[in-house]
Amino acid sequence: MMDENTLKRLKTIEGHLRGVIRMVEEDAYCIDVIRQIQAVEAALNKVSSRILEDHLNSCVITAIQGSDKKERERVLKEITEVFEMSTKV
Amino acid sequence: MMDENTLKRLKTIEGHLRGVIRMVEEDAYCIDVIRQIQAVEAALNKVSSRILEDHLNSCVITAIQGSDKKERERVLKEITEVFEMSTKV
Amino acid sequence: MMDENTLKRLKTIEGHLRGVIRMVEEDAYCIDVIRQIQAVEAALNKVSSRILEDHLNSCVITAIQGSDKKERERVLKEITEVFEMSTKV
Amino acid sequence: MMDENTLKRLKTIEGHLRGVIRMVEEDAYCIDVIRQIQAVEAALNKVSSRILEDHLNSCVITAIQGSDKKERERVLKEITEVFEMSTKV
Repeated sequence: MMDENTLKRLKTIEGHLRGVIRMVEEDAYCIDVIRQIQAVEAALNKVSSRILEDHLNSCVITAIQGSDKKERERVLKEITEVFEMSTKV
Repeated sequence: MMDENTLKRLKTIEGHLRGVIRMVEEDAYCIDVIRQIQAVEAALNKVSSRILEDHLNSCVITAIQGSDKKERERVLKEITEVFEMSTKV
Repeated sequence: MMDENTLKRLKTIEGHLRGVIRMVEEDAYCIDVIRQIQAVEAALNKVSSRILEDHLNSCVITAIQGSDKKERERVLKEITEVFEMSTKV
Repeated sequence: MMDENTLKRLKTIEGHLRGVIRMVEEDAYCIDVIRQIQAVEAALNKVSSRILEDHLNSCVITAIQGSDKKERERVLKEITEVFEMSTKV
């Protein structure tokens, strides 16, 4: 399910976050740190969207085309839940 | 597709927003206005989630179980798009 | 404190929201409704930022240059609170 | 300016993010990965709020009580900017 790009992107974000930690250790200007944290969050949002896209095009199609009604409902409920959560973070 | 509740909720939010406009007209305290705007946004997020939920349980199921591959792709792409946008507003 | 522009912008957003309600009444496509709700939210975010900007350049300056330590703390605490809330809506 | 807690919190978040990377490497369920990414973002939002709070109570007070009008304007503009950005990530 998970492709190489997702992994690569997350490792890049980890490097970015380590950079933020270094900024704090070196007592960087507060606003610059906040801006870098916001950049990390924007990058995380993009990764989430890509993962959701892959998920829709694999698991979700399989579940909806399958015969298990419970499974179908579960899979669709999860989409709504992560969408609702995404408006809060 | 759209149920009565969605309409009712949106009308309530419209009333809430009119209240915010009245606050501004009466020169209310800035921070109180910002807080009410944030409350309006939280309510709009909830309505969006409900609309998405209904959409998944109707159009999306129909499209994915249908035989039109293009339509299926279109419907799934839209989900990713509103998810991606939801992280930005 | 509140300028004319804020009021005008909020009234424009109210018109936009009424348009969304009309879309729901006319049973518009779910995803189009969600997109318009997200556009309303983006516009509300902009108004909030403008109100905060005005607030910082008036009340906040007055409070911080004033001699009342309690008032200063209150005003700064509010800024943090609306910032924290803004990451959640 | 930056306190020990900020550093500690960011290091905890780095550990959390490494956990997410491990989940992807082990091909965890997409939705679980998205949820963990959202948890990382919520934690980052909290750190940002704490940094802003410290910033308001130090640099911002100093700038506003100082005699440099340009500096005062710069510092207040930055607050509006990170607030505006916070509604987008």
